[in-house]
Order: sequence, then structure tokens, then C-alpha cells
Amino acid sequence: MLDLPAKIEGYGTIRAYRAADAAPQTGKVARRSKLLPDLGAAIDACELKDGATVSFHHHLRNGDEVLNLVMEALARRGLKNLHVAATSIFPVHAPLVGHIENGTVGRISASFISGPVGEAVARGALAEPVVLRTHGGRARVLDQGELKVDAAFVAAPAADELGNISGRTGRTACGTLGYPMADVEVARNVVAVTDSLVPFPAQPIDIPQGKVDFVVAIDRIGDANGIASGTTKPAEDKVSLAIGEHAAAAISASGLLREGFSFQTGAGGVSLATASAVRQEMATKGVTGSFCAGGITGFHVDMLNAGLFRTLMDVQCFDLAAVRSYQTDPRHQAMSAAIYAGPHVGGAVVDRVDAVILGATEVDLDFNVNVTTKAGGEIIGGSGGHADVAAGARLTIVTTRLTAAGYAKIVPAVGTLTTPGATVDVVVTDAGIAVNPLRADLAQRLRGAGLPVVAIDALAAQAAATATRPTPPRATGRVVAVSEYRDGSVTDVVRQIEE
Amino acid sequence: MLDLPAKIEGYGTIRAYRAADAAPQTGKVARRSKLLPDLGAAIDACELKDGATVSFHHHLRNGDEVLNLVMEALARRGLKNLHVAATSIFPVHAPLVGHIENGTVGRISASFISGPVGEAVARGALAEPVVLRTHGGRARVLDQGELKVDAAFVAAPAADELGNISGRTGRTACGTLGYPMADVEVARNVVAVTDSLVPFPAQPIDIPQGKVDFVVAIDRIGDANGIASGTTKPAEDKVSLAIGEHAAAAISASGLLREGFSFQTGAGGVSLATASAVRQEMATKGVTGSFCAGGITGFHVDMLNAGLFRTLMDVQCFDLAAVRSYQTDPRHQAMSAAIYAGPHVGGAVVDRVDAVILGATEVDLDFNVNVTTKAGGEIIGGSGGHADVAAGARLTIVTTRLTAAGYAKIVPAVGTLTTPGATVDVVVTDAGIAVNPLRADLAQRLRGAGLPVVAIDALAAQAAATATRPTPPRATGRVVAVSEYRDGSVTDVVRQIEE
Repeated sequence: MLDLPAKIEGYGTIRAYRAADAAPQTGKVARRSKLLPDLGAAIDACELKDGATVSFHHHLRNGDEVLNLVMEALARRGLKNLHVAATSIFPVHAPLVGHIENGTVGRISASFISGPVGEAVARGALAEPVVLRTHGGRARVLDQGELKVDAAFVAAPAADELGNISGRTGRTACGTLGYPMADVEVARNVVAVTDSLVPFPAQPIDIPQGKVDFVVAIDRIGDANGIASGTTKPAEDKVSLAIGEHAAAAISASGLLREGFSFQTGAGGVSLATASAVRQEMATKGVTGSFCAGGITGFHVDMLNAGLFRTLMDVQCFDLAAVRSYQTDPRHQAMSAAIYAGPHVGGAVVDRVDAVILGATEVDLDFNVNVTTKAGGEIIGGSGGHADVAAGARLTIVTTRLTAAGYAKIVPAVGTLTTPGATVDVVVTDAGIAVNPLRADLAQRLRGAGLPVVAIDALAAQAAATATRPTPPRATGRVVAVSEYRDGSVTDVVRQIEE
Repeated sequence: MLDLPAKIEGYGTIRAYRAADAAPQTGKVARRSKLLPDLGAAIDACELKDGATVSFHHHLRNGDEVLNLVMEALARRGLKNLHVAATSIFPVHAPLVGHIENGTVGRISASFISGPVGEAVARGALAEPVVLRTHGGRARVLDQGELKVDAAFVAAPAADELGNISGRTGRTACGTLGYPMADVEVARNVVAVTDSLVPFPAQPIDIPQGKVDFVVAIDRIGDANGIASGTTKPAEDKVSLAIGEHAAAAISASGLLREGFSFQTGAGGVSLATASAVRQEMATKGVTGSFCAGGITGFHVDMLNAGLFRTLMDVQCFDLAAVRSYQTDPRHQAMSAAIYAGPHVGGAVVDRVDAVILGATEVDLDFNVNVTTKAGGEIIGGSGGHADVAAGARLTIVTTRLTAAGYAKIVPAVGTLTTPGATVDVVVTDAGIAVNPLRADLAQRLRGAGLPVVAIDALAAQAAATATRPTPPRATGRVVAVSEYRDGSVTDVVRQIEE
């Protein structure tokens, strides 16, 4: 026993060190492990109760198996009325419908919902309205404590028994882990669910052990081939190419395509056709951009490797070429959902984007965009980062055909307002380019460049004339989903389809 | 204005989106910047008051200029009685003595103090006792809210105006930023101080913008050549080489030198001489280790590149060769102080270390180690990670000569107890190897390998006989520093030198 004073002025009471406090006999620390035998044990360790909030991310997209396995385990534990706080829900998550029906799930919030769950919600499966948040808005409510997560389940392509997670190794490598990076900062418990338990320390680490409480090894977290759900190649049909050419020309005419240019596109065919045209012009002009942001595809990687951009800021790899790039190239950087799109972080990456190419299900006369519901009111998406980057980018271009599947896409009023028109600068269609009247300067530049600038009303009239099916009226039932803007205000509600 | 219900059952009151809430006219987000004109503006922005706690890290070691510049700016603002919560204080920080004398600084806590500040403290310059914490203990009190930091000043080799920090680029690149990684998680304000303001986004990012509030660009944050303060090459003198050989032989005899071996050494000559001998044996045996941890030198990098270890876990680069490696090699990984050494994280990296080589100013008959004070009581160090890794490692080896500068280094009782003897397994000297009686198994293994195992008492007797100067008695004045163990208990106090 040490001979120490009991109390020291300016320090306080002294608790003397004793070896036995650290460990009997040796003072040595026992090697601990966060590994649990199965998901049931993790659920117990998290002390989840009825009504708890469990969160998931969608880096494996339509190849994800973790959400279903965890929900199955939660159902087996007999838990009820759970809140599923997912980043995105895909067709592969159809079993959620059964969990809603049997009362395991009582609430859902997400940034994007497609497939059977969206259909079931639109038809009134849940008593409580779904909350659809933007990616940035979801990060905001997490950081500000508005959304409290009891357990965040991280689909981990590789993990060690102390919880270091790598998205870059393992048979289901998905690349960056931008979405759970936001959840693990605040969740009461974090569970890494992996099918590749590696010796300590995992390498390279994407989420460090300090953010992870438990680790569970399972047979399979999903199918990496499901990551590239949907197109991630430039479109090749004539109409898409023409829209892409015009969108690229609009960027050029805007004056933004200069040294340090920053760019975001989705992974859709028209977006990448635009990127392809922009790429050509950057190469011709000898412009080096600063960064591409958002979900990243092999197309963006090619631009990086061609020296057209200095770095990629990647919240989610959209295809396996992007995963491979992130595995080895330090210029290909991960960012969390908060840093990507948060309205609360004092300057998100989306705020630094010069030009973004976005898609639309519908655009209306006020330039409002719907990417939440399809004609008839079924939920087929949600903002994701759409509304975030629209608000942040200097030039927000929405590309769309005049009609699709016989329905007009330029309409008097959108079926659901996802992204406010005030944040949309230009709409590029196969029948001309409409510029938001708030951007008179831009209309002038585009006209000066010889681009076919037309009024949005004219596009709507032409769309109506071309459409072979009338836009159905909005559903009129009770509210089944709330479309929450990044700042917590509400842009719209989705009402129940009554048949 | 949208036509929305005022309230929705299960959601609550609706606040309808209005473009004007986001930004007048356009709904667009203004581009914000965290850049402030100078340190004075940052101090104002942090709203620092008398008695505030300001934190610093020591990645630039004796080349750091940030601490002095910030303290000068704080003094110019007229602030008094500040608490300087540094990770380490070096001779270059001598101006702190003046700030103590004029009342700007009222309290200091650190993990290591050398040079004029340690001398001044030992002579009673501060009315309040300095709190010396281990690296892991410091991370623990930060995470647990025991140490509240009002402003963490991060010496940033490169930063952009949104606060992304890179330790890998810029003219003062220092490599990993493991210590401030702990501070930025919890500090009320974080200020990046850089001499290399780069275009957004910085690349590669070591501390992301979400953790940083303000950015200040200054002329010079320090001298990168100061990073390698002290030796970072294996010793070449006969005595050191012999100690190193014996330490390496002890590791080998312990049975730990097998596939997956994990290893930590300091940057001192004997530590690296030991590493050199261990390296030879690994190569001969064909053993591949899992990781080297701690502060990393070019010597560790060479072992990585020779394929002897799978990865490096680096809290701080100890020389420029390590910096270069971290710049380009993803197997060279950063870790925060908490993950490195925290006793509160459910399994730190130090808990996974098989063998560690540590130094000592003094070792006593109970195997207690002093690395805090030199003979006479002057403060010349502190635990740093010493006590953390001693507690975590399976085999903790302390190497020391029997005497130095005429003083015995194996003594009846240490001048200051930094690292408890219960956590020290072996002491290797130029006169034989002492094994802690708690580790009878180990003594047997070492004897079996033909190593000269002797009693610690015999070493102490021989040291006393060899010493040309008597060990001075402990100082007897008031308590000027408290040596706090990683768990918050107190191992010892340092008393004022009275002349």
C-alpha cells in the first residue's frame, strides 16, 4: 500500500492505486472480446424492449440480408412495435411487410423505400405514418438527438472481435460505410454483423472499434452483386444522350465548368450520359475539377484516374468498380452522411457542389420535384440525398423525359413534393430546357449559348399532349407517410391509396 | 404555401416547408466557411473565459509551435488562470513558464512533461498540482466527461476551410493524429491551426470536418524535423546491444513469438536494438506477426515492408520515415489515444499486445517503474503510454542499465511510482534478468532457455555498489504533481523540491 495523502488541495480526494483493483495478482488487463454467439445474444446484450428503435444502412442495397436476419431474430425474441430506422429499404426487404402485419414493427423511418414495403405502406399497413427524411435530415436528427437509436446494426464486410469494421475486405466488400458512420456516433448500442470475422486488427479500418459494442459473425451478410442494383452505366439511347448533351451544355454555359469544378450525379443512365458529356468538355478545355461527391460509380472512378478530378467524396459505392477503387486509392475518400449532406454541420459537402444532375418522377410548374411516389400514390422512393444536394449545389439540374409509361412527367402539381422548386435551377427534357424564373441570369446564359430554353408551362402542355394516360388524382386517405425536409419542416404528406 | 394538415396522429405538429426559411428567394444554402482571420478571432469564437481548459497535442513534439502561439494569443486577450490540458510538454514549450508566472496559466495536466516546464513545476511554480495521466487515462477522462475541454487546438499539417485536417500533407506533415482524435470527439470547440490551408476537400483526410469548428491559418505550425526528437535508431554500443539481445531472447523464451505475434517498443535505442534482434528471430523462424503498436518509427515500417507484420497501429509517427509510410501505405493505420490505450473502451489495442519493451528511469524491488522524475525530484517525463501498455501486454519487459550518470537505476524504492510493479513482468539489465515473482512460470522458461535470471534484490545490490552518487531522498515539500493511473486511482505524488 502506498503512503499517499488522503486529500490534496487543488486535486481532491485520493484513491490510491491497488493492484487488486486492476486484476487479482497481476494487475494485468484480461483480453476482452466483443464477439457474441448470434444475433439473439446481441439483441439481449443491447437490452432491447418493445418499442425500441433499431437502425440499418443500405450499402448492400438490394443485396442486403442483414436487415431481414436481424428482424427475424427480433421477431423470434417476441419484441413488438419496433421502430425500424433504416437509411433505405429495397425490394429484398419484403419480409418487413410480414413483420408489420404481425406487430413486430410498429414504425418505419427511412430516406428511401422501394418495393413491397412502399406498396404496403401506401395501402395503410402501418397505423403510424412513415417518416421519410433526406439523407442529411436523417443525420441531423441523429446528431441532434431527435432520433434516438437503441441499436444500430452495421452490415460489416469484415470485422474483428473488438469491432473494427472494414468495408473494403471480405467477400461482400461494399466500399465506404458513409451511412452507418452517422449512426455509430450516437446509437446507444452498435452491433457489427459480419460474414468475415478477421484476426485483430482488421485492416483497413473504416469504422474503428471505439464506436462498436458487439460483434456477431453470421454465414452471409448479403450478395455483393446486389450493390449495383439498377444502371450504373451511361445511357446509350438517342433521347437520353440528347438530354445528357443538353444538361452538360447547360453546365458549360453556366460558367461553372472551370478549374476546381465540383460535380455530383446519380448512378442512372441519363446522369452518367451527362457526366460523359461533361467529361469530354473538361478534357477539351483542360479543366481539372476538385471533387465528385455522393454515391460513386466506376464512371466517376474513371474520371478520377483520368486526372479530371482531384478526389472523390464517397458516401456509398454504387458499383463494384467503385469498391475496388476505394480499396486501394487514397484519393477515393469516405464521408459520413452528416458530412455529405447534413444541414447542421456548418457546411456539408453538398454545399460545395457546383453542379448536380438529378432525376425526377415528376416536376411541376413551380419546379418542385417528386421522387417519392409514382402516379397513383405508391411509394417508390424518397429524397435520399436529392433535396440535400439540390439545396446545396450552385446549379441543380433535373433531367427527365416529357413522359414515361404513358404518364406526363412535367405536371401542373407533383403527386408528392420531395424537393422544393426553389432549389431547382434547370429542368432538362427531350423537348427543351426550362430555367427557374428565380434564375433569370442563368436563362440568359443558356440562351446565349444557343440552348433551347422554353417555359416550364410549355413543357407541361406538351407533356400533357403527349401522355396517353391521365395523371391520377392524389390519394385521399389518411396520412401514411410524411416527407420531411432536411431542416425538419414538412414538404408534403403521402396519403393512403383507397381501393 | 403547401396545403398540409396542422397535426398528424403519430407524427405531431407539422411545420410546413417554406423556401424563405431556407434562404430568401432561392431556398439555396449559402456556402459557409470555418476560416477565421487569426488566433485571437478563434479565441473569441470559442468564447473562452478565465479558467477555461485549452487542449493541445504533441505530434510535432519538440518542433511544435502551436501551443506557444495559442498561449501567447490567450495571454494577449488577457485571459487568466487557464488550464492547459496537453498530451505532452517539451523543452520547446518553455514560454509556458512565463505564462504560469504571469497568471495566464493556473493549471496543467499532461501525460508527459520534460524541459523547463517540468523543472518549474517541481520547484513549485504552480499553486495547483499538475495532474499527470497516462495516454489511456487522459482519453478516459475526456470520454467520461471528467476532463472538459473548452477549446482543443489541433496543429494541422493541412486543413481546408471546412475543417478537414490531414496529417499527411503540408510542409509540416506529422503523420497520424492519434492524440487529437480523442480531443475532437468531446471538446466544446475544436480549432484547426494550419500553415497549409488547402482547397476543399483536403486529401487524405485524417480528422473529418464534422469534428472541427474553426480554422485558422498561420505562417508556421512548427518544424517537422523536431518530430524525431531523441533517438529513433537501434543503439549500437555493446551494452545496449547485449540488453537488446537478452530482451529479445526473453520474448522468444516466453513462447509468444509465434504466428500472429504483436509487438510494441518505444523509439529509444535499446528498444529498437531489441526490435532488431526480434526481427532477426522472426525472419529465421518464418513467423509473421499481426501488428506493431504505439508510436511508430522507420524501423517498424521496415519490418512491415519486410512482411514480418501485417499492419501497424500508429498513434503517433516518431520519425519522418514513419510519416512517409503513413502517407501512402494503407497497412499503416492511425488509431486514437482512446483505442490505443483507453481502459474504458472494452478492449484497447494495448490489451492485444503480446510483448512490449519499455524504458525506465528507475525500477525498484517491487518492479515498480519510475519514468516521471529523475534523481532529485525534477519532473522529466510521465507515463505517456508506459503504464497503459504495461497493464495490457502479455509480456512487459523493462530494459535499463544498472546505473546512469552515476546513479543506481535499480533501487530499493522508486522516486516516483509511475507504472505499478504488478504489471511489469521482466527487467532486463546489463547484469542479468529479473523476473517478477508473480510470473514464476516465466522465470522457469527463461532459465530453461539459458538466460541469466537473477533476483531483483541482487541487481539492486550490484547497482548500489556500482553507483558513484547516492540516490537523493524524495523531495518533501507540498504536492506539485499527482501521478494518476489509467483508472483514475493515484500511483504516487511528486513533491516540491525545496532548496
